[in-house]
Order: sequence, then structure tokens, then C-alpha cells
Amino acid sequence: MGMTMTQKILAKHAGLDEVKAGQLIEANLDLVLGNDVTAPVAIGEMKKMNVDCVFCKDKIALVPDHFTPNKDIKSAELYKCVKDFAEENQITNYFETGRVGIEHALLPEKGLVVAGDVVIGADSHTCTYGALGAFSTGVGSTDMAAGMATGKAWFKVPSAIKFNLTGKPAKWVSGKDVILHIIGLIGVDGALYRSMEFVGDGIKYLSMDDRFAMTNMAIEAGGKNGIFPVDDLTIEYMKEHSTKEYTVYEADEDAEYDEEYTIDLSTLRPTVAFPHLPENTRTIDEVGDVKIDQVVIGSCTNGRIEDMRTAAKILEGREVAKGVRCIVFPATQAIYLQCIEEGIMTTFIKAGCAVSTPTCGPCLGGHMGILAKGERAVATTNRNFVGRMGDPESEVYLASPAVAAASAITGKISGPEELGL
Amino acid sequence: MGMTMTQKILAKHAGLDEVKAGQLIEANLDLVLGNDVTAPVAIGEMKKMNVDCVFCKDKIALVPDHFTPNKDIKSAELYKCVKDFAEENQITNYFETGRVGIEHALLPEKGLVVAGDVVIGADSHTCTYGALGAFSTGVGSTDMAAGMATGKAWFKVPSAIKFNLTGKPAKWVSGKDVILHIIGLIGVDGALYRSMEFVGDGIKYLSMDDRFAMTNMAIEAGGKNGIFPVDDLTIEYMKEHSTKEYTVYEADEDAEYDEEYTIDLSTLRPTVAFPHLPENTRTIDEVGDVKIDQVVIGSCTNGRIEDMRTAAKILEGREVAKGVRCIVFPATQAIYLQCIEEGIMTTFIKAGCAVSTPTCGPCLGGHMGILAKGERAVATTNRNFVGRMGDPESEVYLASPAVAAASAITGKISGPEELGL
Repeated sequence: MGMTMTQKILAKHAGLDEVKAGQLIEANLDLVLGNDVTAPVAIGEMKKMNVDCVFCKDKIALVPDHFTPNKDIKSAELYKCVKDFAEENQITNYFETGRVGIEHALLPEKGLVVAGDVVIGADSHTCTYGALGAFSTGVGSTDMAAGMATGKAWFKVPSAIKFNLTGKPAKWVSGKDVILHIIGLIGVDGALYRSMEFVGDGIKYLSMDDRFAMTNMAIEAGGKNGIFPVDDLTIEYMKEHSTKEYTVYEADEDAEYDEEYTIDLSTLRPTVAFPHLPENTRTIDEVGDVKIDQVVIGSCTNGRIEDMRTAAKILEGREVAKGVRCIVFPATQAIYLQCIEEGIMTTFIKAGCAVSTPTCGPCLGGHMGILAKGERAVATTNRNFVGRMGDPESEVYLASPAVAAASAITGKISGPEELGL
Repeated sequence: MGMTMTQKILAKHAGLDEVKAGQLIEANLDLVLGNDVTAPVAIGEMKKMNVDCVFCKDKIALVPDHFTPNKDIKSAELYKCVKDFAEENQITNYFETGRVGIEHALLPEKGLVVAGDVVIGADSHTCTYGALGAFSTGVGSTDMAAGMATGKAWFKVPSAIKFNLTGKPAKWVSGKDVILHIIGLIGVDGALYRSMEFVGDGIKYLSMDDRFAMTNMAIEAGGKNGIFPVDDLTIEYMKEHSTKEYTVYEADEDAEYDEEYTIDLSTLRPTVAFPHLPENTRTIDEVGDVKIDQVVIGSCTNGRIEDMRTAAKILEGREVAKGVRCIVFPATQAIYLQCIEEGIMTTFIKAGCAVSTPTCGPCLGGHMGILAKGERAVATTNRNFVGRMGDPESEVYLASPAVAAASAITGKISGPEELGL
């Protein structure tokens, strides 16, 4: 029996010719990631282990992005803990406020992850890098500590679900809509501890930013990882961003999948996940009249340049509705700079958006856009659990940058088509 | 006995021909200001008074700027309280996230304050508008409530100190250096409940942004207000920003002053206030070797376009020192936009600064740049009390944008001259 793409990457990193779903393996790690919330816990765990140095100062990435610029004294202490650790261990890839970005946008942009890598990160959305044909997954802080100390991690080899994507998405249908559709289809535990392997002719219509948004949300279906095959677009992206050597893995023809779905992308519509689960999806035609108080455009899911461009196209020459706060977070400093250069930032400011320096901010109810009781937000983020963005009685509706921008203008959940676009 | 400029404005607004220092008067108000921290308290007080409408919907300004974009659920509730009140009372000058700015930069920019006005604001730095030849002062939330209800406020007419400014300041000496020098001279209670009236030939060398920075910090010397005479520059500024009618008041020749100081601006040096009081000033030549962790450029004191330009001149083509966070807050959306258009924003991002949407942020230890125990910041803000920007064991050094930017590059308190500028 053949192996899936994920299984082949894991086998190679475990020094094995073959692995099977369910098998326990120990794999070598190409990168271990932590942020300002999780790394301090991992650093504490390393100290408990009496480990006084990291396995490789070049293979650890520390990205303080969650509560930075420091929200309060507690978060300032967390930031300082990470900073001190990075200095002591001369961590190559430690990123400071002003030279940082949201971790899952920053690492690919800085070329720290390429196809064939095995990456763990103490953050659930570490699965993002699967868009590059890497195996990456979120772990707890203790696993991060062990990873920093040894350069290895234990995994139970996942089985897989194959998503055969066909057809070309219509205008305003993005990777975010595809993944929301899929989560709506299989549910938030539909891929529990399994790989979500995306294949098919439709992939060529998905940009890298579309793919990042999709693999980013694999965890929202319970997936261990999400992964795309490597194509010309992937290679072009890696060449532009990285000097690391990459390895292309392909699933065997006879690889075994638990389930297979075929999704015709041309039939999809802009999709919104209603409170309080990402699986509560409706197409834009089914949303009804939902007034909103806030729009958030950004995050590790949808804070990339293409997301900014899409939002700007819709906000250009228009104004955010009275009573609505539209908060935009480009995911990295490079994206922020590109937004300035392309005139996108000017569009946002003129439209009445608050544009923040990169931070995870309101996505996790961190800061910079928290909801009061009874308030509703449309957000390009990844989770809409109860109280995720603030008060337990607030509501989050997950959507694409196009829907978010259109909603900012109308003051209710809307697609761009409602604006004649 | 003649009257000071302040006394003449107050007399007119009290319907009196003459007032004397110490006299209690009731004055008509041209504007009543509140923010997201103080307005909710005032709104509560109004309800206790059983007042169900405001005296004039056009003469109240509500500017949620302190903990916005909403830092947490509590601040989201405060924001919502202000928003609901503004809607109920159809407040003309209510500013929303994304269309807001730091109150004391926003109001003059929007033309809401002009020469001859009497303004109260539930924020201590309301004294800023004295730069325009207005009487403006900070009050408590209860006074704000009474002001919103009646359009009047009681004052004890202040006596005054005259600051006769002569000479032209050297390169890199700004209004911030002048006011820090003055506070160093007279102490943090040196002008307690008195007007600080700035006059003299040297004024013509001070831009409006210099003057705003100076009157902004009158309260840091205990002043009831700070005030500048109206000259061509003031009139030009008002014509550009406002359609309101203004009235020019001049101090009588025989006005009485408690004290008079003559300050030759040409002798001043860039000045830094050491922890933990604004009066602990040293010139840049006396600062010694003080390593820093953070730089903050912005606030109601120094977040205006000229401040941004000065900082950008120094940061252009340079990089923020390793280990230092440089956080820049343009004070309003208009300034933010102008920074983009002038290439200033690009300079900041390339230098490695985190640029935030307008907010009071770290100035008051609010959010977006809080210090951990033992950390030190150079800030263009206005207060360096114990724990002002975070941990009680952190330190804040107050300085001009030029010194702040130079310090960001060297990683220690430095003047631009240290960079050969």
C-alpha cells in the first residue's frame, strides 16, 4: 500500500522507508516555532528538563505576535522572556516588534519553511505551511520545549482525506470560501487527527495566498495538517522567498485515503461561517439581514497581500458605514510596505479604516478590536467560538476579505455583488 | 489693573467687563470634550442629574482614543457607552475608530477650536488648544457632565506667569525642548492653577506644532492653562482648518503677572526629562550612557506631522537598533495619510518601526507598547511618573521626536548630532 504525501514526508524525516497510518514515529524537525504566548511556557519547560541549550539556533523561530506591541505588563513580561531567551541562545530567527509579523505569514515570507520540511509550532495554525508542500502542525508548549531541546518530535502518523478540487472559482470566490465550504461540509471534527490533502485540476486557479488561507484552517476541521502538492506556483514562491533547499514529495498513486471528496470550485459562492462554529456556513445568498458593528481584515488566515488587494478593490472610493469600525491588519511589515507602495494603504485610510501594525490582535480576543456585549463582527480570521473576539455575548462571522470589505461599507453582511462589483 | 490674555477671554465668556485673579465666575463654553475613559463617567453623572439632553449637540466632542481600537471587553463597553450616547443625542462631533485620532491633535485639525474659545475637556491635556489663543483646560468627568448639560462651567480666574521667549532655537531644538526646559526651571508645580502665557519675539520661530507641544504640557508644570498670542501663523492655521469665527484677545499692557521669565531660545539644547518627573531635565550633553528598550514617537504632545517629519529625517536610511522597539503613533488619520503621501511611513517601516493606528496607547500605560520590569523607554509623550508606561520598575525618559528617533537608532539616549546630523 502506498503512502500519502504527508506520510512520505514523515517517513523520510523518521529515517524510514515506509510508515503507516497510526504508527508512532520520531521525526527530525526542520523548524520549531513559538510565539509570545507559547514560547515562555516552553522556555520554562526546557528549564525544568535541565536543558541549557537548544538543538540548533538556526532551526528555531520565535515570533512575538499575539499581544504585541505589548498590550499590558503581563504581555511585556512574556515578550521580555522570549527576547532574553533569544539573546542567550543566539536564536537566528527571533523577530522583534517593528521587524515582526504574524508568525504564519512571516515564516514563509522569510523563506524559513519550504516544501518537504517538517515543522512544529506551539500555535494551532502552524498547519498553514502545508500550502508549500511541507508537513507542519501545531503542538503544545511542552512538545515545543522538547523540540527545541532535541530537534525531534513524536507523531502518530495520520491517515488522510483527499479533496479533489476541480473547476475554476468565480470572481470573489477565494481560498477562504473554499475552506469554509469544506468545513461546512465535513464539520469541525470532520478531519480529526487526519491529513487534509488537496489535489486536482482546480488547484491551478488557487494562488499561494488562497492556499495559505486553506491550509491555515485545516485545524478548524480538526485536521492534523493540510497539504498541497508542489506545482510551478509553489516553486516560484519558494524561489522568491527562500534560499533553503526544498524536496518535492508526491502521494503514491495507490495511497490510501479514509475518504475522498470532489469539489467543483466553479459552483462555490462567497461563504460565511455564522456563530459560533466555523462549520455553520451559509452562502452569501443565504445570510439574510445581519447588521454589524465591526469588521476585521487581517490575521494569519487572510492578512496577506492578495487579501489586502481584494479588500482595497472594494473599499476604493467608498466609505466604511457609520457606526462600523473597520480594522485592517496587514500580516507582516513587508506586506504593510507593499500596501503603501501600491496605494492600498491610502485607500484604507481614506475609506475610514483603522490600520494597525501587524499583530494577532482581535482574532483571539487579544487586543486592538475587542467586541462589547451584543456586538457583531465580520472577520477574515479563523475562529468564531463563543467569546473569541470579546464578550461571551458578542458574535463573529467568518468570511473572505471581499465579503468583509463589502460588509464594512454596507454595515451588514454583504457580498461585493451587492455593491455592483 | 489690566487683564492677561486668559482673563480677557474668561471675562468675555462670563459676560463681564473685567475679572480678577481669584474671582469665581461662570463662563459659557464653546466646546466640551470627553474621551472613552472620561465620557462614560460623565454620561453616568448626567443621568444622575436627571438631565436627558445636552445643551448643544454641535458643541460637544466625543473622541474615543485612549483604549481604542478596543483593548479589552471593558474598553469595548466604554466605547459602546460613548457611541450609544452620541447616537441618542445626535452629537455632531463624535469620532469613530478609523475616523478618529488623539483628541488634542484631532480637535484643532478638524477646526473645532479657534482663538478666543473657552473649552473644557475631561482630560488633563485639554490645555493644548491654548496654542491657538483659546482658553482650554482639563476638568473632571463631573464638570464635563455639568458642561454637557448646561453649556457653562465655573472657574476661579487664574493669575499668570509670563514667559518672554527671545531668540531663535538651534537646529533640533523644538517646542518640546522649550517646554521641558521651562518645566525643569519652574518645577512640576511651578505654575499651579496659573496661566502660562507665552510671549516675545522668539515665538515667530515656533511652528504651530511646536506651540501645541508646549501648551499641551502646561499641565505638567501644574498650569491651569497655557496660551500663545494669535499671530499670522495662528490665523493661517485656523483658515486652513476651520470655518468657525475666531476672536483675537491680547493681554493688556498693564496686565499683572505673578512672575516673569525671559528665555533665550537660542541657548537651549535638546532636553530630556529623566524618571520620574517631567521636571528632572538634563540637556542632551548631560544624559550619560542610558541604554533603552523602547522608543515611542507620537501622542497628543508630539504626534503631529512636523514631529513625524523630524523623526523620519533621522530614521531615513537608518535602522532601529537591535533589541529596541520603536513604536510610532501618528496622532490622527489625516496625519497618517500625509505620512504615507510624503514617504514618511515608508521610511518608518523600512527602519523597523511598528506604526500604529492613532491611539493614546502606551503614553498612559494603556496598551500597544507597555514596559516590562526594568525596561526603559525614550518617549515623546508628556509624563514619566512611576509606572506610567507599564511596570512600576520601568522608566520613561521624555524627549523630542528628534532625540527619540536618534535614540532608537543608537539604542541609548542620543541626540541627532551623535549621528552626525
